[in-house]
Amino acid sequence: MNIYKNPPKSEWDQLLKRPVEDLTVLEDLVKNIFREVKINGDKAVREFTRKFDGNTLDSLKVSPKEFHQSADMVTDELKNAIATAASNIRQFHEAQVGSSTHIEPMKGVECWQEFRAIEKVGLYVPGGTAPLFSTLLMLAIPAQISGCREIQVCTPAGKDGKIHPAILYCCHYLGLKDVFKVGGIQAIAAFTYGTETISRAYKLFGPGNQYVTAAKMWATMEGVPIDMPAGPSEVLVCSDASGNAEWIASDLLSQAEHGPDSQVIFITTSEPLIEETRIAMGIQMARLPRKSIISEALQHARAIYFEEEEMVFDFINQYAPEHLILNIHKPEEKLHKIQNAGSVFIGPYSPESAGDYASGTNHTLPTYGQARVFGGLSVRDFMKNISFQKITLTGLENLAPAIIPMAAAEQLEGHKNAVTIRLKSVT
Amino acid sequence: MNIYKNPPKSEWDQLLKRPVEDLTVLEDLVKNIFREVKINGDKAVREFTRKFDGNTLDSLKVSPKEFHQSADMVTDELKNAIATAASNIRQFHEAQVGSSTHIEPMKGVECWQEFRAIEKVGLYVPGGTAPLFSTLLMLAIPAQISGCREIQVCTPAGKDGKIHPAILYCCHYLGLKDVFKVGGIQAIAAFTYGTETISRAYKLFGPGNQYVTAAKMWATMEGVPIDMPAGPSEVLVCSDASGNAEWIASDLLSQAEHGPDSQVIFITTSEPLIEETRIAMGIQMARLPRKSIISEALQHARAIYFEEEEMVFDFINQYAPEHLILNIHKPEEKLHKIQNAGSVFIGPYSPESAGDYASGTNHTLPTYGQARVFGGLSVRDFMKNISFQKITLTGLENLAPAIIPMAAAEQLEGHKNAVTIRLKSVT
Repeated sequence: MNIYKNPPKSEWDQLLKRPVEDLTVLEDLVKNIFREVKINGDKAVREFTRKFDGNTLDSLKVSPKEFHQSADMVTDELKNAIATAASNIRQFHEAQVGSSTHIEPMKGVECWQEFRAIEKVGLYVPGGTAPLFSTLLMLAIPAQISGCREIQVCTPAGKDGKIHPAILYCCHYLGLKDVFKVGGIQAIAAFTYGTETISRAYKLFGPGNQYVTAAKMWATMEGVPIDMPAGPSEVLVCSDASGNAEWIASDLLSQAEHGPDSQVIFITTSEPLIEETRIAMGIQMARLPRKSIISEALQHARAIYFEEEEMVFDFINQYAPEHLILNIHKPEEKLHKIQNAGSVFIGPYSPESAGDYASGTNHTLPTYGQARVFGGLSVRDFMKNISFQKITLTGLENLAPAIIPMAAAEQLEGHKNAVTIRLKSVT
Repeated sequence: MNIYKNPPKSEWDQLLKRPVEDLTVLEDLVKNIFREVKINGDKAVREFTRKFDGNTLDSLKVSPKEFHQSADMVTDELKNAIATAASNIRQFHEAQVGSSTHIEPMKGVECWQEFRAIEKVGLYVPGGTAPLFSTLLMLAIPAQISGCREIQVCTPAGKDGKIHPAILYCCHYLGLKDVFKVGGIQAIAAFTYGTETISRAYKLFGPGNQYVTAAKMWATMEGVPIDMPAGPSEVLVCSDASGNAEWIASDLLSQAEHGPDSQVIFITTSEPLIEETRIAMGIQMARLPRKSIISEALQHARAIYFEEEEMVFDFINQYAPEHLILNIHKPEEKLHKIQNAGSVFIGPYSPESAGDYASGTNHTLPTYGQARVFGGLSVRDFMKNISFQKITLTGLENLAPAIIPMAAAEQLEGHKNAVTIRLKSVT
């Protein structure tokens, strides 16, 4: 962990930096796989799956038998944990649906918005070093609440051709049936164009490694929008002298264990807390199984001491962290100062792992400074609004003095005519 | 207008098609301009402006004097029209802000979402054949309601170095000060990287021609998200035998006058209405100034007769039109059948031009079938949510039986440790 004390703003650029992710080097690979999948469908998907995942599958689609088997392979303790998490996630996301807008700005002019589900969505759940079944919950529950008609899941199988039982169990628990043993670029390509087995999705969701991220960017160029751009996971822990060094250390380490590229930042107004936290990290780290990943991530971790609290919030907003842990005195009074952050954990008993799994908030969050623009995944991301307007003759008479001069000034006589012809007919 | 009668579904693919927009041919041009603007800032912007817009500007930024002059150049009639439209647009968009989500799924676990404005936005207003000041209202009013701190506008000046007075007046009327005489690819590049005069925007909004569209796609690759992908404007008018052929004709023509690539579709369950409408179009068109544009657009326009109403809604949802005019008996009873459309105009007195200018709904709408995924521009597009969670000791005790087994099953011991270390310390 690199330590900085009262860095002047002129040096912040360096401290605010994320590692450069140059996905353009993957462009040729992505384009090639997309082209093959577009032309050859399932055949290409199978070939790339054999090549990259090292397995040969009888069927790309998970069978009912496999779902049932998964239920036997998950402990009751984990099943209960999943049920609790799913219930909390469901409550948080159900509260987001919101109601329609309805106004009548003038007599005879009614306007409103209604929200409709995106009919077909594709969810991507990474395999890799950890079986992230929690991601499945975070993607599928809001999709189900939104009312998406077709929810498909792609997730890579291991060399043995099997998906981790906890992922399959979560699909089974939520009643998802269209689950495919396909990962990486070929999964995103299959969602983009459709194949014999996997149907074309209208929007793509879910995190992934750099290959998946590059493929999702390409999908947008091919006309299929995505949830948000993804980068390495991040935490910014902010603490004053009231912070508990051991707890802060545990939060920093839980972020670091995600991967060598994890972004770990600690900001404090208490200078001694940095050293205390560093020592606590050393002790805790020795007991963690993923310590080699952690120590790689910590090489670019940053601990920053600021004397002034104003600097702290300025730094937070400029960095726009994915996760922000706020371990300060009377945190509620400072929340209005937060302009840019994905998910905020308030007070000493709110570790990031609560939100990663079970508090109910979504763990699909904006990274790489995108919290300036995007929020955590929510039900609205699986829906779109439709505007409606119903205008009566009186309403059109009321609007005409606005429409007619504006259409004329924009030199669009046809637009003007659509109003005048109606009003002339009835007078 | 091409006429089809009861086309079988096997032939729909052809009828649902949009013209292919191959923006990749512009890739080199876009990349080159972006690179120049990134390196040389204002100097490059000025050079491209001279080259493409044919003007040489003293200052890229509109001066206070120019704003004041614009007010003298706009008639009172148009000023009143703009005031009415702005008021209706403001009312519709203020109703969209919505309230925060707040839940307490377990004792001691509070979760909520808050919405914050995106701090810096860049709005693009096209110049070109028609001075689209209405677009300025549609972009800037929701941005202002959201509370965006920095709202910048780029719009191209003419060969005389001037922006159309109606556009300037709208900026002035709304109190916008950061307005730049820059258009095309160089405007989007300036927003993406920032120059000496134009500051970097976090998100880009606004329609444009193919150059602007290609530039916006490149901006997303450079990490600056956009409102939505844009294509040529579209209307689908749907009418039963109750429809008035003259009024339908006026709606089809008002769409066609947007440009030669405008998409004009008429669907009816009344066979004779097609011929009646065709005749009415011929008569009205002769009087419209943009008739050469209209006749080009009508070459690929489609009129489709369907005997069955079910087919009509099926076609609408598959096409996902930007604008949908619903001229049918008891339209309210059919609204639930509409899954994919941008803005819907209900009944005979709701022409598209009402929504284009003044009813209050936003005219920045999804084209090219993107209504499957996107809605019209709304206040939420200028904001992002932030998730908050505040957990007490009791709350963490309640969540622990969910977090701990899930973290263990995902092989993330550090995540588990962040919970257990807190609970151990206090027991």
